[in-house]
Amino acid sequence: MDERTLRRLLARVKAGEATVVEAVAALKAAPFERLGDVATLDTHRALRHGMPEVVLAEGKTASQVATIARRLAARGPLLVTRLAPEKAGPARRAIRGARYDPVSRTLAKGRMDLPVRGPVAVCCAGTSDIPVCEEAVVTLGVMGVEAIRVYDVGVAGLHRLLARRADLERAVAVVVAAGMEGALPSVVGGLVGKPVIGVPTSIGYGASLGGIAPLLAMLNSCAPNVTVVNVDNGFGAAFVAGLVARG
Amino acid sequence: MDERTLRRLLARVKAGEATVVEAVAALKAAPFERLGDVATLDTHRALRHGMPEVVLAEGKTASQVATIARRLAARGPLLVTRLAPEKAGPARRAIRGARYDPVSRTLAKGRMDLPVRGPVAVCCAGTSDIPVCEEAVVTLGVMGVEAIRVYDVGVAGLHRLLARRADLERAVAVVVAAGMEGALPSVVGGLVGKPVIGVPTSIGYGASLGGIAPLLAMLNSCAPNVTVVNVDNGFGAAFVAGLVARG
Amino acid sequence: MDERTLRRLLARVKAGEATVVEAVAALKAAPFERLGDVATLDTHRALRHGMPEVVLAEGKTASQVATIARRLAARGPLLVTRLAPEKAGPARRAIRGARYDPVSRTLAKGRMDLPVRGPVAVCCAGTSDIPVCEEAVVTLGVMGVEAIRVYDVGVAGLHRLLARRADLERAVAVVVAAGMEGALPSVVGGLVGKPVIGVPTSIGYGASLGGIAPLLAMLNSCAPNVTVVNVDNGFGAAFVAGLVARG
Amino acid sequence: MDERTLRRLLARVKAGEATVVEAVAALKAAPFERLGDVATLDTHRALRHGMPEVVLAEGKTASQVATIARRLAARGPLLVTRLAPEKAGPARRAIRGARYDPVSRTLAKGRMDLPVRGPVAVCCAGTSDIPVCEEAVVTLGVMGVEAIRVYDVGVAGLHRLLARRADLERAVAVVVAAGMEGALPSVVGGLVGKPVIGVPTSIGYGASLGGIAPLLAMLNSCAPNVTVVNVDNGFGAAFVAGLVARG
Amino acid sequence: MDERTLRRLLARVKAGEATVVEAVAALKAAPFERLGDVATLDTHRALRHGMPEVVLAEGKTASQVATIARRLAARGPLLVTRLAPEKAGPARRAIRGARYDPVSRTLAKGRMDLPVRGPVAVCCAGTSDIPVCEEAVVTLGVMGVEAIRVYDVGVAGLHRLLARRADLERAVAVVVAAGMEGALPSVVGGLVGKPVIGVPTSIGYGASLGGIAPLLAMLNSCAPNVTVVNVDNGFGAAFVAGLVARG
Amino acid sequence: MDERTLRRLLARVKAGEATVVEAVAALKAAPFERLGDVATLDTHRALRHGMPEVVLAEGKTASQVATIARRLAARGPLLVTRLAPEKAGPARRAIRGARYDPVSRTLAKGRMDLPVRGPVAVCCAGTSDIPVCEEAVVTLGVMGVEAIRVYDVGVAGLHRLLARRADLERAVAVVVAAGMEGALPSVVGGLVGKPVIGVPTSIGYGASLGGIAPLLAMLNSCAPNVTVVNVDNGFGAAFVAGLVARG
Amino acid sequence: MDERTLRRLLARVKAGEATVVEAVAALKAAPFERLGDVATLDTHRALRHGMPEVVLAEGKTASQVATIARRLAARGPLLVTRLAPEKAGPARRAIRGARYDPVSRTLAKGRMDLPVRGPVAVCCAGTSDIPVCEEAVVTLGVMGVEAIRVYDVGVAGLHRLLARRADLERAVAVVVAAGMEGALPSVVGGLVGKPVIGVPTSIGYGASLGGIAPLLAMLNSCAPNVTVVNVDNGFGAAFVAGLVARG
Amino acid sequence: MDERTLRRLLARVKAGEATVVEAVAALKAAPFERLGDVATLDTHRALRHGMPEVVLAEGKTASQVATIARRLAARGPLLVTRLAPEKAGPARRAIRGARYDPVSRTLAKGRMDLPVRGPVAVCCAGTSDIPVCEEAVVTLGVMGVEAIRVYDVGVAGLHRLLARRADLERAVAVVVAAGMEGALPSVVGGLVGKPVIGVPTSIGYGASLGGIAPLLAMLNSCAPNVTVVNVDNGFGAAFVAGLVARG
Repeated sequence: MDERTLRRLLARVKAGEATVVEAVAALKAAPFERLGDVATLDTHRALRHGMPEVVLAEGKTASQVATIARRLAARGPLLVTRLAPEKAGPARRAIRGARYDPVSRTLAKGRMDLPVRGPVAVCCAGTSDIPVCEEAVVTLGVMGVEAIRVYDVGVAGLHRLLARRADLERAVAVVVAAGMEGALPSVVGGLVGKPVIGVPTSIGYGASLGGIAPLLAMLNSCAPNVTVVNVDNGFGAAFVAGLVARG
Repeated sequence: MDERTLRRLLARVKAGEATVVEAVAALKAAPFERLGDVATLDTHRALRHGMPEVVLAEGKTASQVATIARRLAARGPLLVTRLAPEKAGPARRAIRGARYDPVSRTLAKGRMDLPVRGPVAVCCAGTSDIPVCEEAVVTLGVMGVEAIRVYDVGVAGLHRLLARRADLERAVAVVVAAGMEGALPSVVGGLVGKPVIGVPTSIGYGASLGGIAPLLAMLNSCAPNVTVVNVDNGFGAAFVAGLVARG
Repeated sequence: MDERTLRRLLARVKAGEATVVEAVAALKAAPFERLGDVATLDTHRALRHGMPEVVLAEGKTASQVATIARRLAARGPLLVTRLAPEKAGPARRAIRGARYDPVSRTLAKGRMDLPVRGPVAVCCAGTSDIPVCEEAVVTLGVMGVEAIRVYDVGVAGLHRLLARRADLERAVAVVVAAGMEGALPSVVGGLVGKPVIGVPTSIGYGASLGGIAPLLAMLNSCAPNVTVVNVDNGFGAAFVAGLVARG
Repeated sequence: MDERTLRRLLARVKAGEATVVEAVAALKAAPFERLGDVATLDTHRALRHGMPEVVLAEGKTASQVATIARRLAARGPLLVTRLAPEKAGPARRAIRGARYDPVSRTLAKGRMDLPVRGPVAVCCAGTSDIPVCEEAVVTLGVMGVEAIRVYDVGVAGLHRLLARRADLERAVAVVVAAGMEGALPSVVGGLVGKPVIGVPTSIGYGASLGGIAPLLAMLNSCAPNVTVVNVDNGFGAAFVAGLVARG
Repeated sequence: MDERTLRRLLARVKAGEATVVEAVAALKAAPFERLGDVATLDTHRALRHGMPEVVLAEGKTASQVATIARRLAARGPLLVTRLAPEKAGPARRAIRGARYDPVSRTLAKGRMDLPVRGPVAVCCAGTSDIPVCEEAVVTLGVMGVEAIRVYDVGVAGLHRLLARRADLERAVAVVVAAGMEGALPSVVGGLVGKPVIGVPTSIGYGASLGGIAPLLAMLNSCAPNVTVVNVDNGFGAAFVAGLVARG
Repeated sequence: MDERTLRRLLARVKAGEATVVEAVAALKAAPFERLGDVATLDTHRALRHGMPEVVLAEGKTASQVATIARRLAARGPLLVTRLAPEKAGPARRAIRGARYDPVSRTLAKGRMDLPVRGPVAVCCAGTSDIPVCEEAVVTLGVMGVEAIRVYDVGVAGLHRLLARRADLERAVAVVVAAGMEGALPSVVGGLVGKPVIGVPTSIGYGASLGGIAPLLAMLNSCAPNVTVVNVDNGFGAAFVAGLVARG
Repeated sequence: MDERTLRRLLARVKAGEATVVEAVAALKAAPFERLGDVATLDTHRALRHGMPEVVLAEGKTASQVATIARRLAARGPLLVTRLAPEKAGPARRAIRGARYDPVSRTLAKGRMDLPVRGPVAVCCAGTSDIPVCEEAVVTLGVMGVEAIRVYDVGVAGLHRLLARRADLERAVAVVVAAGMEGALPSVVGGLVGKPVIGVPTSIGYGASLGGIAPLLAMLNSCAPNVTVVNVDNGFGAAFVAGLVARG
Repeated sequence: MDERTLRRLLARVKAGEATVVEAVAALKAAPFERLGDVATLDTHRALRHGMPEVVLAEGKTASQVATIARRLAARGPLLVTRLAPEKAGPARRAIRGARYDPVSRTLAKGRMDLPVRGPVAVCCAGTSDIPVCEEAVVTLGVMGVEAIRVYDVGVAGLHRLLARRADLERAVAVVVAAGMEGALPSVVGGLVGKPVIGVPTSIGYGASLGGIAPLLAMLNSCAPNVTVVNVDNGFGAAFVAGLVARG
C-alpha cells in the first residue's frame, strides 16, 4: 500500500464511502512492508549508514560492475571494491571522474559531506599489507574522513611504531591491518585509548592459514579496545572507523 | 499502533476530527510492527509452523523451565527438549498430565490436531543413537504424526535394514540418526524416494570429532534426497519431517 | 532373474518339469538382486525418486558427458549439472532439444509429469548466489515443479525480504541459498511454517572458509524448520524441495 | 632515570658542573623506559582508555582477586569479570559498596565520570545469551554510559526486533550478542547506521563448535558496520561501544 | 522367507494348490532378506569375520552390558571393550570365567579356534600407550592369535626398537600404537615388510589435539605398508591384524 | 665396511697380520651401518617389502623421473606413480617395455614373482574414483597379485554392490576407494570378513574438504575390519592389500 | 653380539677354528643393535642431552611416579613435570631432598654441573602464564642454568617490557610464554638478537582454541629468531634454552 | 625530540634561560621515541641479530625487490628469499656479485664475519624437501656459518640416517626439514643432544593439509630438544641455528 492508495482510502473513510471496519481490515491486510515507513526504509538505511551502497566487484562481470556503478554514481558518491585492473575498464569508461586505484583495486568518485569529529589512522605492519590499508584509505575518502597513513610499523621493530604515536593520538579511531602473527592491533590498542579495528590480512604462508592465524590473534587480543573484521576487509574496517569518526 | 488506536484514528477521520493528511502522517509514523498484521505475526507463526514454541531446557534452571512450560502448556501442546532428569522435577509437578521421558530427555503434553498425509520413519544405526531418535519420536507425537521406529539397522549389517524396507516405504519422510561414519542416511536415501533428514550423532570417539565426522559424511551424501540438521538434533529433524508429513 | 524367468520356472515346477529341490536351488542361487523385487529396484528407485539419474559433469570429460547424457536422454528427462560452458559442446550437439544454461551450468531436456502440490520458492541473499539458485530452478523445472524466484533479499535489508512474503507463503517448500554469514534461511524459516532447505554458497572470502561459515550458521539455525545441504548444492536442495512439493 | 635524577642532572648543567655534551650523552644513554614519560605511561593509558585496569578473575584464586581488586578499588572505579559466585566472597567482603552480580558474574564499584554522547543498546537473540549481555551492561555502567537492554529479539521472529527499532535508533553504538547461527548482528547492522559490535556466544551445541560458528558468521556479515570480538566477550564489546559513546 | 517356507510354496505350486501368479506374487513380496542366502547373512558374517559381535560398553549402562554380554557368551567367545571398572561388576558376576582387565578395560572369555599363520607384534612408543596396546593383546587372545608385546620403543631412543627387531620379524602383522608425534609406525614400517596397522593414541596435550596429530602423521607415513585406524582403537587394529594372521 | 673389507680384515686376523684386539677395535669403530647386516638392510627391506622402491613422480622433473626410473628398472620391476602425462615422455622413452597408463598416471614394467594366496578386489563408489582404483590395480599388477575390479557400486544403489558379492568373497583383501561421504568401506566391511583398506578420494566439493570428509568417515567405520590410508593413495592401499595377499 | 662374543669369534678365526666365510656370515647376521656402539647409545644420549630422563607424571599413577622417580633420583638429578599436588605425596615421601612446587607442578632434586655460557630469561605476558614459566625456571635449575624471571610484560603495556630490556640483553636465550594473541615472542624477538623460544599457553577462551591461537601466532612470527614448542610446554622450551646456554 | 633540540634545551638551562622545572617538564613531555637511544634502536637490532634485514620477495614486484635489495646490498651482506626465477632478473642485474639459486629461490651476496662456535647440520627426509634445506644452507652461508648437508635420510630407512651420525655429532645445532609425517626431527632429536629446529614442509597431499600434519607432529615431538618454525620456513630455522652457532 503506497501513500497514494492510503490517501485515497482515508478520503473514502472521510467521505463515508468506506466504513471504519473496512478501512481497518484493509490496513491490516496490507503487507506492512508497502507502508510508507517501510518503503522508505531503504533510503533511510543509505542515509543513516552515511554511505550509498558499495559494490563488491568480485564475482561480478566487468559489464555488470559498469552498469551497477553507473547507476549508483548518478545518485551520489561511488565506491567499488575488489575490482581487478583487467575488469575495471568498462566501469572507468562509463563514469566520468571516477578514480581507479590499482593498489587498493577500488573505483571511487565523490565524497560524502557529513560532519566529522576527527581523522582515522590506518596502520599496517608491513608493505605487503598496504593494498588492504589503501582500500581503507579510499573508503574513508569517500566517507569524507581524513586518513592518516601509519605504514610499516611492525612489532618486531617497536621504535617505528612508537615514533608515530603522535599520529595515533590525533586519530579518533584506528584501523590496523596485519598478517602473519597479527600482533599489531594489540600493541596499538595498548598505546591509544580509542576504538582499534583489526584487519587480519592473508599475508603469510603455511600456518598463517590464509589469514586465520592473525584473525585468531586479534580476536584474542589482550587490549580490550580491539574489535575485528574479516580477513583482508579493509573496506569494512574503514567503514566502521568512519562511523566512529562521524560520531 | 494496535487495532483500537487505528480504529479510533479512522473514526476521527470519518468524523472530520482529523484530516487525511494527518492520518497519513500518523499511519506512516506508526512503528509498523505495532500494526495488527505484525502484532499477530507471532500467533501466525505458531499456527503456520504447526507447533507452539518449543522449550530448549539446556542452559535454563529447573524453575525457569517450569515457569515457561506451564505458561505454554496452558495454551496448547507442550514440548520441552534436552531436559535432564535431575532438572525435570519442578516442571513435571507444575504441569498435570505431562509425560517425562528420561531416554529422550523430553517433557511433553498433548498433541496437535492437523491433517497428516502419512507416517514418518525414524531410523538409527545403533542402540547408542536411540536417545536422539526418541527425541524425534516424541516430537512427532506432539505434532500428531505417527512415528515408525526402525532401530539398529547399521550399514555394517545391511540385511537388518533391507528387512525393514516395507516400513520405510510406508513413510512419507524418513529421519535417520547415525554417529560414527554417518553412512546410514545415504543408504536409506538410495532405498526410498522420499525426503531423508540426516541427524549426525555425537556417538563415537577420536576422529568422530564429537559428531563432525558423520555430519560431514551426510552433507556429502551421494543420495540426492538427503538433507542434514545439527549434531544430535533429533527434534529439528522430526519437526521438518512432521511438516513434510502434513503436506 | 526377472519376472518372466520366474514365471517360467514356476510353470515348469507346476508342470512337473522341474522338481521342488531344483527350483529351490535355482531361486537361492539366483543373485537375489536379480529377483523381481530387487531387479527392478533400480527402476523403482528412479521412479520413486521421481527423477532419472542426474549427471554430475565435474570430473568427467566432455565426451564422457555427451555419451552418458545421450543414453539417459533416450530414456526420459535429462539433467546434467556443473557442466562448464567449454565442456558443454559435445553433449549439446548430441542431444536435440537440450537447453544449456551458462549461468546455472546445466544441460536439461524434458520434464517429469507427476502430480505436484504447489510451487517451491527459491531465495537468495545476493546476486552472486544466483548461479546456485538457477541450478535449483532448472532442477525443479525437470521435476515438473514450479519455481518462484525470490532473489536479492539479504538480511541486511529486511524490507526486501518482507516485501516478498506473499510469494513465500504460496510455496510448499523454500530453497534458500546464502553465502557470507548464511543468515537468510533462519530469517525465512521464522517467516514461513514450511520446510526450508538451506544451501550455503561459497560466496565470500577469508573467514567464510569456502562456504563453511554459512554452512555452520545454517546447521545452527534457531528456526527449527531449516535443514541443510552441501555448499553450492543447488541441485540437491531443489531435489528435496521437489520431493516435498510432490507430497 | 627517574625525575629526581633528571632534576639533579639539569641542576648540575645549570650550575656548570656538567657540560651540555655530557648531559646529552647521559640522557641518550638513559634507558628511555625509566624517563618520566614512560614511567607515567601506565597512568596515561588508564586515563586515555577511560577505564582503570579490569580484573579477569578466571585463572586467579579468590584471595588473589580480593587483593588485586581492593588495591584497584582504592584508586577509582572497579570492575572484576568472570568471577564465579563461589570465588566472589573474599573480594566482596574486602570492598565496601562493591556490587556482585551472579548473572553476569561481575563485581563492580563506582563509575567513571566522563562526557558521553549517548546510550549504547545491548541486544541478544535469546535468553541464554543474557549473561553475556549483562556483563556488557555492567561494563557500560562502570564507564558511565547508559545501556538500553534489547533482549530476546532473535532473527526467527523478526517482529520482536522490529518492535524495538526506536531503542536501537536512540543508541550511538550497539552491542549484539548471539549464539547458534549468529545472524542477529547482520540484521541489526542493516537496520541502524551505527557501529555494531557482535559478540558470538557459546550457546549452542554440535556444529556451533563452542561459539566458532556464530563467530565466523559475524566475521562474514553482509552488513558493513559490524565488527566482532571473541566468543562470550561481553566486556570487550561494551568497552569498545563505551569508547564510541564517549566520542 | 526361509528355505522351508519356500519349499512348501513350491510344493503347493507343484500340487496345484497355488497358481503360478500367486507364487510369483508371494516371491516378489517376500522381503528378499528372508531368503536363505540373506537370512543366513548374519551368521555368515559372524563366521567369516572370525569373531562374534563385540560389545562396545561405552554409552551403555552396566546392566545393559551384562545382559548383552551374557547372551553373547552363551554362544561363543566374548569380548567387551571400553568397559570402565566401575561398570564392570554386573557383567563379571553374570558370566563365569570371564576375565576383566582394568588396564585394557576389557572383559573377555574363551578364544576362537581357527588356523593361524603366525603371531602379531603389538608395539608402542611409551608406557602411557599401554592400555591401548593391551586392548589389542586381549582382542588377539580372543581371536586365538599370539601377541608379541614390544613396548616402550619410542623413536627418540631408536636402539630400544632396533633391539627388538627379531620379534618384529617373527610377526605376520604389526600393530603400532603411538601418541604425540605418532612417528613409530613409519619407523617400524621401514624395518619390516609386513602390514603395519597404526593406532594413534590420545596421549599428549595442546597441539596433539586429542590424537589428531598422530593420526595425521600416520596417514602421511612415508612407509607404504602403514594403514591407520581411529584414535585409541586398539581393538580395531588388532582385529585387522588378526584377520591377516589367519590368512 | 662392506663385505670385501670385512673379509679382508678377517683374512688378516686368520693370517696373524692383525690381532684380535685390533680387529675388535676396527669392527666396533666401523659405523655399524656399514657392517654387512646394515649395508644389506636396504636390499633386505626391498626384498621383505616385496616391492622395489616406488617413484612418486609428483614434485620431480620429467628428467629426474626418467633418470631414477631407468636405474630402478635395470634392477627389477618398476613402478612410478602420480606421473602426469605431460611429464611421462622422457621416462617412457628411456625404458623399453614400460607401460604408461594415463588414467592411473602410472608407469610400470615387469612384475614380482612371489607366491600369492589369492586375488585382491578393488572397489569404488563412482566412476570419478576410477583413477585411484587403477593406481591400485597397476600396483597389484607389479606385485604379481590378481586384481578384481568392482567399480561403480556406490551405497545409494546397494543392489549393484550386492550383485558383486561373489567377487568380494573370492578376494583375500579388499581395497575400497570412495569420495563424498566415504560410506562404501563400511558396507563392504560388513559383507566380507577380510581386511578392507579404505582409500578416501578427493572427489566431492564444499564440505568434502578435499577428501577429509570421507577420510573421517572411514576412520569412524562401524565395520571393525576397515583400516585407512591417505586421501587418493591408491598405491598405498594396494601395497598393503598385496602384502596380505602374499601372506 | 657383545664384545666378548666378538672377541671369541675372532679368536676362533685366528685359531683356524672358524673360516673367514663363517665369520662374515656370523657378523652379518648379528643384530647390529647388540654391538657395543649401539648398546651404549642410551647412556650416550643421556650424557649428550645433558639431562637424565624427565618424568611426565600426567597419565601415570602416584605410585608409578614414585617408583620411577626414586630410581632416577638414585642416579642423578631428578625432574618430574605435570605432577598434580594430589598425586605428589608418594614421590615426595620416597625421595629425600626433593622439592615439590605446586605452582609449576614439578618435583625436582639436584642439578647438573656442566659449563654454562650465561643465563636464560623467562618472560610471560600475564600472571596466568606464570605456572608455565615456573616449569621452565625449575627445568633450568635442574640443568644448572640461571633463570631471569621477566613476568607480566604483556604487549598491551609495552613500557613494562621495555623497562626490562637490560635483563633480556643479559640472557643468552629467551623463553617467552604467552596465551591469548601470543604476540610477546615477536616483540621480544624484535628487541634481542638471540634465540627466542615461544611457548603458547592455554590461557584464554573462545577463539583461543585452547592455545592454538597463540601457537599459530608464534609460528607466523615476523621476528625470525622465534621458534616454538607445544602449548604449555614450559619444560621443552627451557630444555632447549638450557642447551643453547651450555653452548 | 632530536639531539639538536635536546642540545639547545640544555644550553638554555645552562644559560639560565630555562629553569630546571621547565626542562624536566619538556623532557618528560618529549615523545621518548625521538630520543637517541630509540632512534638508534634499528641499527642496534640489525647488529644484535647478526643479520641485516632479509627481503621476503613473495608479494613484492620484481622491481620493488630490486630496489630494496640494492639498497641493502650497499650496506652489507644481502639475502632475498622466496624469489621466483621469473622475478629474479632485475635484482640480479642490479647487484653485482649476487648469487641467485633457483633451487632455494634465494639471492645472496657477501657473508657476515662474526665468531662461530661450529657448523650447523641441515637434514631432510626426502629429495622433495631439498629446496627448503637449500634456503637454510644459503642463509647459514650469509651468516658465515658452515652448513653440513645430511639429505635423504627419511625414517622409513633408518640406516641412511644412522650412517650420518658423525656429521650430526659435529654440528652445534641441527635444522631438520620433513614433510609427510614429519617424524625426522624426533628421531634426530633422540640421536643428538643439541637444539634441533624442525621445519615442516608442504611436501605431501591429502591429509598432510599443506604441511600442517608434519607441523603438528613436530610440535608433539617426544624428543625434548625439538623446537619448530613455520611450514617451509628454511630461512627462519637456519637463522635461529646460526644464532646458536654463534653462541
